[in-house]
Amino acid sequence: MPRYRMTVEYDGIPYVGWQRQDNGPSVQGAIEGAILSLTGEKVSIRGAGRTDSGVHATGQVMHADLSKEWKTYTLRNALNAHLRLAKERVAILDIAEVDAHFDARFSAIRRHYLYRIITRRAPLALEAGRAWWVPKDMDHEVMHAAAQTLVGRHDFTTFRSAHCQANSPVRTLDRLDVTRTGELIEIRATAQSFLHNQIRSFAGTLKLAGEGKWTVDDVRAALDARDRKACGPVAPPDGLYFMQVDYRDGVGPVDVDDE
Amino acid sequence: MPRYRMTVEYDGIPYVGWQRQDNGPSVQGAIEGAILSLTGEKVSIRGAGRTDSGVHATGQVMHADLSKEWKTYTLRNALNAHLRLAKERVAILDIAEVDAHFDARFSAIRRHYLYRIITRRAPLALEAGRAWWVPKDMDHEVMHAAAQTLVGRHDFTTFRSAHCQANSPVRTLDRLDVTRTGELIEIRATAQSFLHNQIRSFAGTLKLAGEGKWTVDDVRAALDARDRKACGPVAPPDGLYFMQVDYRDGVGPVDVDDE
Repeated sequence: MPRYRMTVEYDGIPYVGWQRQDNGPSVQGAIEGAILSLTGEKVSIRGAGRTDSGVHATGQVMHADLSKEWKTYTLRNALNAHLRLAKERVAILDIAEVDAHFDARFSAIRRHYLYRIITRRAPLALEAGRAWWVPKDMDHEVMHAAAQTLVGRHDFTTFRSAHCQANSPVRTLDRLDVTRTGELIEIRATAQSFLHNQIRSFAGTLKLAGEGKWTVDDVRAALDARDRKACGPVAPPDGLYFMQVDYRDGVGPVDVDDE
Repeated sequence: MPRYRMTVEYDGIPYVGWQRQDNGPSVQGAIEGAILSLTGEKVSIRGAGRTDSGVHATGQVMHADLSKEWKTYTLRNALNAHLRLAKERVAILDIAEVDAHFDARFSAIRRHYLYRIITRRAPLALEAGRAWWVPKDMDHEVMHAAAQTLVGRHDFTTFRSAHCQANSPVRTLDRLDVTRTGELIEIRATAQSFLHNQIRSFAGTLKLAGEGKWTVDDVRAALDARDRKACGPVAPPDGLYFMQVDYRDGVGPVDVDDE
């Protein structure tokens, strides 16, 4: 039974999230539906990250086992045709046939997320749902300095949702960069895996630093507190994008991501 | 009666276009509705360009006469609050009080549009409705070369909708640049005024050049034909953005825009 790795883009707005749930349409459900329409097979797919409702992806990765051998080019075009027919806001960017040991979730060695903030007085018309609207200007250099206190191996209990199911709150954050282009502030986060709501918790906390309400030391103290109550308000899902997943060829199970 | 100039951003997808029409919600209607809710006044506003259904704006300009003097800051925030309440995809970016001779449409000396094309095999999920999806790769350098044959003062009958109401098909195109960033091809057009569907007609024709179906000489011949039937297929509204309008202070009526 061949296994296929697929790179997926989606608009998170109309979905309850990546994962199939009873309370509404999911990205997973949309793709499983397209596979069912195309092949007649009821398959269960697995994604590298379980994004929440409203969170977007430009490079989510998933795998699926299909009974038939497909030319990857044909499979991608056929699945996209079914997704379009169903008016889903999901597209399969790329498909590769992979080894049966490959697991989109457990073989991932690095995950890359982007969080977008637009700072301006006027509400967002074109970018509504695609970025976090912050009406006040922020100092992105202070945000970047504060972010650097979070990089490295830490107990991230402060920045973890109460619903996080990971066994350990310890993660190694490889990168948390804050840059600015005009009114757009971008936070780029890289780690092998993230805790549930970790990046939105970072974004909400860094906003306090950007507004001058918190100092860099306050952010460090929040991390050190290892206490969910020490976190700033969690940022909305609108600005979060799952950008990319890195794999090492032939690698087996590695770790769990819960963002 | 003070006159206010307003810069407007909107998502063109839910609207029949800028102009108030009987067949559905318009951007003009949304803003006039917000003014009515705020001031109780039935005003008629005028925009610098009458964009079609599905065409977006990041810098449309309009003017409105209100009976009361407003602090522009307060007026902008109050109108945006009413627009948000009505769930409109429209935002007022900026307001200035202007001279009674100012006219958003007739005082404009230059209009800037952007047309976005995404070339890739997979359909657009995140950018659906925000760019023209072209599944085949295109040569943007050939597109740029072809575009340069259109720059200057010409009879643009070929690139003008059959419904165009302008008196003359002659316009002076100041700029038509084609650039590329990865899978995104951007066409930037500047002129004092445009004919109806002119930029979408350019985009559809330049696509033929980018695909290698037309040469640069074919594009020049299409212009020279002064015949609507010589135009390539008109590009969809999805990729078109009204970006900016330039004014000279104190300038009176100048010309008409029909894009």
